[in-house]
Amino acid sequence: MTRSATSATLADDVRSGDRAALARAITLIESRRADHQAQARDLVQELLPHTGHAVRVGITGSPGVGKSTTIDALGMALIGKGHKVAVLAVDPSSARTGGSILGDKTRMARLSAEDDAFIRPSPSSGTLGGVAAKTREAMLLCEAAGFDVVLVETVGIGQSETAVCDMTDFFLALMLPGAGDELQGIKKGLVELADMIAVNKAEGDNLKRAKAAAAEYNAALHILAPRSEHWFPPVVTYSALTGDGIDTLWDKILAHRAAMIACGDFAARRRAQQVKWMWTILDDRLQTRLRSDPAIRGRVRQLEAAVANGETTPAVAADEVAALLERR
Amino acid sequence: MTRSATSATLADDVRSGDRAALARAITLIESRRADHQAQARDLVQELLPHTGHAVRVGITGSPGVGKSTTIDALGMALIGKGHKVAVLAVDPSSARTGGSILGDKTRMARLSAEDDAFIRPSPSSGTLGGVAAKTREAMLLCEAAGFDVVLVETVGIGQSETAVCDMTDFFLALMLPGAGDELQGIKKGLVELADMIAVNKAEGDNLKRAKAAAAEYNAALHILAPRSEHWFPPVVTYSALTGDGIDTLWDKILAHRAAMIACGDFAARRRAQQVKWMWTILDDRLQTRLRSDPAIRGRVRQLEAAVANGETTPAVAADEVAALLERR
Repeated sequence: MTRSATSATLADDVRSGDRAALARAITLIESRRADHQAQARDLVQELLPHTGHAVRVGITGSPGVGKSTTIDALGMALIGKGHKVAVLAVDPSSARTGGSILGDKTRMARLSAEDDAFIRPSPSSGTLGGVAAKTREAMLLCEAAGFDVVLVETVGIGQSETAVCDMTDFFLALMLPGAGDELQGIKKGLVELADMIAVNKAEGDNLKRAKAAAAEYNAALHILAPRSEHWFPPVVTYSALTGDGIDTLWDKILAHRAAMIACGDFAARRRAQQVKWMWTILDDRLQTRLRSDPAIRGRVRQLEAAVANGETTPAVAADEVAALLERR
Repeated sequence: MTRSATSATLADDVRSGDRAALARAITLIESRRADHQAQARDLVQELLPHTGHAVRVGITGSPGVGKSTTIDALGMALIGKGHKVAVLAVDPSSARTGGSILGDKTRMARLSAEDDAFIRPSPSSGTLGGVAAKTREAMLLCEAAGFDVVLVETVGIGQSETAVCDMTDFFLALMLPGAGDELQGIKKGLVELADMIAVNKAEGDNLKRAKAAAAEYNAALHILAPRSEHWFPPVVTYSALTGDGIDTLWDKILAHRAAMIACGDFAARRRAQQVKWMWTILDDRLQTRLRSDPAIRGRVRQLEAAVANGETTPAVAADEVAALLERR
């Protein structure tokens, strides 16, 4: 691997913990320019040996659940314990809207003012696979820069939660107490991913409802077969507003980490994530080429329509697409 | 598309409802010989206009839940109503063991003796994607041969359930009453797929336990957000032994079908399945080439190991694999 001067210098600056350099490095990763992408690959490869030590936590929750205030409170608590906290995001909708769920740093008023915190909005270009890949690499850069806790926020839409779960060690689902009797439903896909369910707003008048919601979620989870025999997803309550239970969130994350390391699942999950990531990138590359190459795109669309209408068999269409790919 | 003589004649025989021809056609589809595969593509393309009218039902359940006796009872009930019933299977483990969950037809003693029933074991070669693709095409052939109900059985392992859900209109999960208090856990992934949960062995001494289990499953499902706003997965009890509740299974399947057609989800799901199928086949082709081409396989394995060990970034490895694919 050629070590380009740019990436080498930048790598040293990132490792020194230079926040401006870290921000530049992530911008380089997110750039679509071919020369930037080549530099970015060198940079990540260069920093790779200095990554992997952070506690990687994915956090999801519907809009209004209080993700920002929760991350603000959790982040401040962690900084109080001497940690350096990076906050990243995967928001595929940002690719369409150009906005980002973390674009507005004022959503994390306290944390964004801390030297030991680094907040970065979601990449706002490309497919979900592309956005997730950039966030993954940003995570590695943050680790190389000395951040030992990485919080990856995602909105609860479709595959973005799976993508974040695939890049983190622990996946936390935030919920709200039901208003009165009606309980906020757990998205089915989420049940499969969550290592813990935390009910926010366990404060004042809501305390009782929060406890009741937690009890119901817990009962529901007990009817489901656990993903790992070494960890049963706990259901806890907390208040991002008062800070009650924030420490418990972190204690559970560390307990999970200890259990997974003890049984070997931790290393296995990290390894599997790496390999899966490689295939995801490859798939995203092929998909991107099929969509971007004008010579191919039109024909692929025709084939998709013919298959959807039952005029052509998927096998016949797949043969032609494969031929289009191989002819390049 | 060239219309090979063989496939043309065979297509006519299949359409005439000739069971021996149907069996030969499926064998042709499952063959790995290049000339057979070309004929199979012509055959399916030829019969495509005569497919799609059947009720496609996926059925899953852990070993011992009574899948065979359930299919035997349901199939006999449907034949009694004047239906023609095809029973297929997706069993990826058959690729390893050479066996098949439906290899032993005596498991469906009554149904296998019926002229209006056609039972075919799972294809026993290839990746899950390959096995599923062959089962899908076998389903189309059965439809062209006049079977108006297709039951696709699968064992509850990993992705096979998703594969069957992706080729059927209705996905039925069979469960057992818990022994005493302990309740059989619902696999989390299954919660996302199931259009109905049916508790078997609701008979004699088990009746009470079956009802209790159904009530608990129902309570759990109600805490989960439904997949479709037009259908809430019911939880029912039945007995494959006595036949009690078998008619209810079919009534629910038809009720779901009516609801999905009314809201337009039925056509949308079928179209989406077709397109997804095309991409699955393409992906399977690429994967197969990466695994089978000796020039590529070794290097891919090295790259996977390097990525798993954190020596190479997934992006760098993906670039090289893409180059290997494109060089062919």
